[in-house]
Amino acid sequence: MTQTLGKLAEEAGGELQNADPDCEIIGVATLQHAAEGDISFLANARYRKYLKITRASAVILSPEDAATYPAAAIVSSNPYAVYARVAALVSPPAPVRQGIHNSASLDPECSVAASAWVGPHCVIEKGAVINAGVQMAAGCFIGADSVIGTDSRLSANVVICHAVTIGARVRIAAGAVIGSDGFGMANEAGRWLNVPQLGSVRIGNDVDIGANTTIDRGALEDTVLEEGVRLDNQIQVAHNVHIGAHTAIAGCVGISGSVRIGKYCMIGGGSGIVGHLEIADHVIITGMTMVTKSITRPGVYSSGVPAQENDAWNRNYARFRQLDKLARKVHSLERNFTAEKRQENK
Amino acid sequence: MTQTLGKLAEEAGGELQNADPDCEIIGVATLQHAAEGDISFLANARYRKYLKITRASAVILSPEDAATYPAAAIVSSNPYAVYARVAALVSPPAPVRQGIHNSASLDPECSVAASAWVGPHCVIEKGAVINAGVQMAAGCFIGADSVIGTDSRLSANVVICHAVTIGARVRIAAGAVIGSDGFGMANEAGRWLNVPQLGSVRIGNDVDIGANTTIDRGALEDTVLEEGVRLDNQIQVAHNVHIGAHTAIAGCVGISGSVRIGKYCMIGGGSGIVGHLEIADHVIITGMTMVTKSITRPGVYSSGVPAQENDAWNRNYARFRQLDKLARKVHSLERNFTAEKRQENK
Amino acid sequence: MTQTLGKLAEEAGGELQNADPDCEIIGVATLQHAAEGDISFLANARYRKYLKITRASAVILSPEDAATYPAAAIVSSNPYAVYARVAALVSPPAPVRQGIHNSASLDPECSVAASAWVGPHCVIEKGAVINAGVQMAAGCFIGADSVIGTDSRLSANVVICHAVTIGARVRIAAGAVIGSDGFGMANEAGRWLNVPQLGSVRIGNDVDIGANTTIDRGALEDTVLEEGVRLDNQIQVAHNVHIGAHTAIAGCVGISGSVRIGKYCMIGGGSGIVGHLEIADHVIITGMTMVTKSITRPGVYSSGVPAQENDAWNRNYARFRQLDKLARKVHSLERNFTAEKRQENK
Repeated sequence: MTQTLGKLAEEAGGELQNADPDCEIIGVATLQHAAEGDISFLANARYRKYLKITRASAVILSPEDAATYPAAAIVSSNPYAVYARVAALVSPPAPVRQGIHNSASLDPECSVAASAWVGPHCVIEKGAVINAGVQMAAGCFIGADSVIGTDSRLSANVVICHAVTIGARVRIAAGAVIGSDGFGMANEAGRWLNVPQLGSVRIGNDVDIGANTTIDRGALEDTVLEEGVRLDNQIQVAHNVHIGAHTAIAGCVGISGSVRIGKYCMIGGGSGIVGHLEIADHVIITGMTMVTKSITRPGVYSSGVPAQENDAWNRNYARFRQLDKLARKVHSLERNFTAEKRQENK
Repeated sequence: MTQTLGKLAEEAGGELQNADPDCEIIGVATLQHAAEGDISFLANARYRKYLKITRASAVILSPEDAATYPAAAIVSSNPYAVYARVAALVSPPAPVRQGIHNSASLDPECSVAASAWVGPHCVIEKGAVINAGVQMAAGCFIGADSVIGTDSRLSANVVICHAVTIGARVRIAAGAVIGSDGFGMANEAGRWLNVPQLGSVRIGNDVDIGANTTIDRGALEDTVLEEGVRLDNQIQVAHNVHIGAHTAIAGCVGISGSVRIGKYCMIGGGSGIVGHLEIADHVIITGMTMVTKSITRPGVYSSGVPAQENDAWNRNYARFRQLDKLARKVHSLERNFTAEKRQENK
Repeated sequence: MTQTLGKLAEEAGGELQNADPDCEIIGVATLQHAAEGDISFLANARYRKYLKITRASAVILSPEDAATYPAAAIVSSNPYAVYARVAALVSPPAPVRQGIHNSASLDPECSVAASAWVGPHCVIEKGAVINAGVQMAAGCFIGADSVIGTDSRLSANVVICHAVTIGARVRIAAGAVIGSDGFGMANEAGRWLNVPQLGSVRIGNDVDIGANTTIDRGALEDTVLEEGVRLDNQIQVAHNVHIGAHTAIAGCVGISGSVRIGKYCMIGGGSGIVGHLEIADHVIITGMTMVTKSITRPGVYSSGVPAQENDAWNRNYARFRQLDKLARKVHSLERNFTAEKRQENK
């Protein structure tokens, strides 16, 4: 949607520099590939070199980068956030639809707001409530007594099991499963007895859930995601987990049962968290880390092991297998050496 | 469903203590949150402190905990197993349904038992057999010639490919895919040729399969899960894997092709097993471990690396990258030191 | 489908040895389990022992193995590739279907070739193009303006979001999601703003995508898989990733945003690649490795940590946590020892 630079700066929250406010912007693009009519941005230093060659009609820049930029810019201390708003203005999401596709299958005792859209082959069970403005693509399943909050968007083939509560403006990507039974079982003489999973899942407002991510229902109490949480694809959230507001979790993370994660945390892809731990607010966990103890202070935590050439790796790992022995040897050498020196000094 | 304490003790297999057998139980709850009419349990020492303050009308306890508990209890050497049964009695699963939803799409040559339920938008292909009591939620796909055993329950959007055999009382969570082609291919001058995957999948009785878990069909013979196996969410089971009875596998585990896992094993979340290995019975693998050799003896095996503060981690890891060098230095120091001493002692 | 040995050798590209070209082959089987009428193969040394006892009517062998094999064989320097073709001749895939199932839901402005098959409950949105010979099982969703190339096969419940381009002869297993929004967001005072994901996904010809694998659309430009790429199950491919031709990636791998992987690479299961890296052509990454820096040369790279017995692991890991200290101690010992020797030699 064509926008003027003036309107973009005003609505997205930046200052114009060297710019004609009436200049028309018709698209967004990277610095390298922008053409006339596009607006671009610089948020990652590795792309700074392209500032010199970009053909963008305007660029969103930090004050530092803007100071030496001779052409049209929108200046902000947070250029990436301004870009996010600009892009939404220039390329707005698909318009909302209303109504119920005639192939959808609705229990007579469910409730669907008139302004919601229920796509083809969706199924809504008894007692479920679909609030105003909800957009539900094809093949979604909403179990009995679940509630989908205002303006939430479900992509295709999302499964919401029974009695789950989803807040407002939540986005759930295709194939996600919310409210499946937790992995709870008692062992009796070697056999597993299923423990009924009687809690549910509560998702706060403005949460994003990635494709094929799974969030299990609680055993007795609820699994909870507070407002603003961001989950990437292929994440597993076990029963009774509690994730604090505005925490972001990258793909392929596994969070075991009853873990409590604080607010404003960031968890790198492929990490795992052992059951029943607590993670404080403002904790950053780097990729492929295994958390085995509660983390009580903000900070950065790691255990992901970076790759080496295989030969070097094998040599080092062979030593690791004997590391305890090696350490004992060092300590014994140290003792002997010190004893010797003492002897000499007598 | 309201039950008396007497009936619960009798059916779930515990002894009443300080209890009125006619006391009515209307719900289950945690020790902290139980109200009058609830029954609770203690199976994890970290919650023992709540025994003193619980308002539960009865608690399921081990004999040790019961010895000092002054109020109503059901006593058992396995309180968690008793709780599993009690919870199922107090909060029974949703009642079974019967029939075929009119939006389901059935091949004329499939067979569905009169007591089974086939939900909306399910698809059942030619030759498939749905046995008595099967409950199939919406959007499931049952490929040609597959068999679903008596009383098995499929959640929404489960995919069972062709010629797969599922036992009785199997539970399959939403989004699971069983019988997809294995990752088999031959390389010819850099290009990959698909190797036809001609085996299938056989799932024993009383198996549980988690949400979005995938189990590939065998290349020539079958991928097999023996009875009572428990798989959590987001697990990948490759072609020709064989998993022994009553083995439990936590979320996000990847099992490579032709692995053979014994009975009564437990595999922690995020672990991976290299192809063609054998794992003995009664093996425990802790979380995020990589198994690269067959394990021939019962026991506990690990390689998951616990998190540290990032600074400490980086320092230690930098040393790890030089560990072979460090070990050589230690051995050389030791040789020199010993030589020196020998010299001195001459 | 019954085939003669002569025809199999001719079409699959091997030389007959000790064989009657008119011998009829009715099935394929492993060496151990083959019966008369079956053809088998030897491609993995660990199964060589079964050559002596096999009852197969013919075996596909390398020249080395064939040299001492006294019975009927097809000889090739690449027996596994020949087997792949033989198996496809003996057990051809299910015949293609044509038409549109009456329960499918098609936008009036989509285009479906007459020779394509659209299964039950599939949904095809406005502007989507389904080319000749495409086979689409039940419950698939094809978003607006997406294109599915000639003879591609989608298993059940596959989701292709809007404006995605899929090449010819691509196979997509059940539950895969292609073109979901990337995990792009800007932080503003602790809250996450979604960055519109305006790129798409382009999949080349002859690509295979595994069950429940997810491939996100690009933020501004496209996520690209070149021809012949092989992806196993449960893989996460983030936005703007580029995967070179004929690269194969095993299950549960996570690839972060803007990673560029070369051609002819092989990536082991459970590995992870940090964002914005470049991986050269012909790189092999072993299982459960974390790649944190670009790899500029072909070769084998590793960081997956093999399992040990838990006691040994714990002892070694305890030393690892102090590895920097240990290294300092070794260096100090070395300095003191050298100083001492210098002293003595004065």
